[in-house]
Amino acid sequence: MSLQHALLGVLEARPMNGYELTRFFEAAPRWVWSAPHSQIYPTLRQMEQAGLIEGQQEIRGTKLRRMVYSITERGLEELRGWVSTGHSAPPVRDAFFLQALFFDMVDPEEAASVLRAYIEGQEKLIAEWRAHSQALLAKETDLLRERLKNRPPAEHDRIARLKAHVFDGQIAVAQARADWARESLRLLAGDA
Amino acid sequence: MSLQHALLGVLEARPMNGYELTRFFEAAPRWVWSAPHSQIYPTLRQMEQAGLIEGQQEIRGTKLRRMVYSITERGLEELRGWVSTGHSAPPVRDAFFLQALFFDMVDPEEAASVLRAYIEGQEKLIAEWRAHSQALLAKETDLLRERLKNRPPAEHDRIARLKAHVFDGQIAVAQARADWARESLRLLAGDA
Repeated sequence: MSLQHALLGVLEARPMNGYELTRFFEAAPRWVWSAPHSQIYPTLRQMEQAGLIEGQQEIRGTKLRRMVYSITERGLEELRGWVSTGHSAPPVRDAFFLQALFFDMVDPEEAASVLRAYIEGQEKLIAEWRAHSQALLAKETDLLRERLKNRPPAEHDRIARLKAHVFDGQIAVAQARADWARESLRLLAGDA
Repeated sequence: MSLQHALLGVLEARPMNGYELTRFFEAAPRWVWSAPHSQIYPTLRQMEQAGLIEGQQEIRGTKLRRMVYSITERGLEELRGWVSTGHSAPPVRDAFFLQALFFDMVDPEEAASVLRAYIEGQEKLIAEWRAHSQALLAKETDLLRERLKNRPPAEHDRIARLKAHVFDGQIAVAQARADWARESLRLLAGDA
């Protein structure tokens, strides 16, 4: 399950409690994997039972106790195994292309307005991912800074480049989608 | 739920029984929406209860009875309403980009082999979608032929172009992904 691997990957940077993890996934809905907190807590419990992470009570002041999770050796192995193995592609399920498949059934002006909103959404994602890619390249995100503390300095640039490149990939996909939507507008208008 | 809209869109072409619908979704895993038969039958029952489709017993020979579903006026309205409305983007959840985000943790040769398998998968999708796009443009798919029987001949070319264009969009996205994976190979090899 990919949420497990997303959590392992985040915890590899540094130990975090459930609340911090929830905030990370909420503050990063435009990361590569989003998850609601209703999924995060039960998944953490399962992962702890499976020995992939381990929880430790964190005592702050006299009362507040939180479970802080860190990745175990077994969790690291699971993450590395998953990352280095080819996985079959998920089933094709693209709600937007499904919608576009029936544009001939509606008023072209309505279809055009759906397309314009879609282009705007893709442009917004592109802007967010571009900012994130640049922050990674400059090694300026909190998580990357934590992560690099445990890596040889000679590798820092390479790691930052590899991570930034993932967001460049998401940008390229969103750009292809926005370009496609622009062509669709021309097609609907009868210009293509 | 998008499966409902996928089913409505297929049934708009012609009435079908559950078995034919299941075969359509199985034979078209590379369409825009795939669904296992375990989802199709219960969804058809819900849609019938909601008045979006209507079932009629089909009697073949003396014994074989199948329920043949056709789209109702209400189903058409639901489909048109969904198609002409902008919907919020689904949450970002890309298992492959998530995997790529941790390529720095594994042997570059293993990461490269994951990337090569991924490129191959995308190329295969591109070839299937290209064939489908060309068949649509030539009005040669069974479903499109059935669908066009109920549309004015003057619109046939436009409808075929709009539908083919959706698969051109899927091709453009897969191409962006394959190109990205090729750049990743160069980056892993230290050439970028």
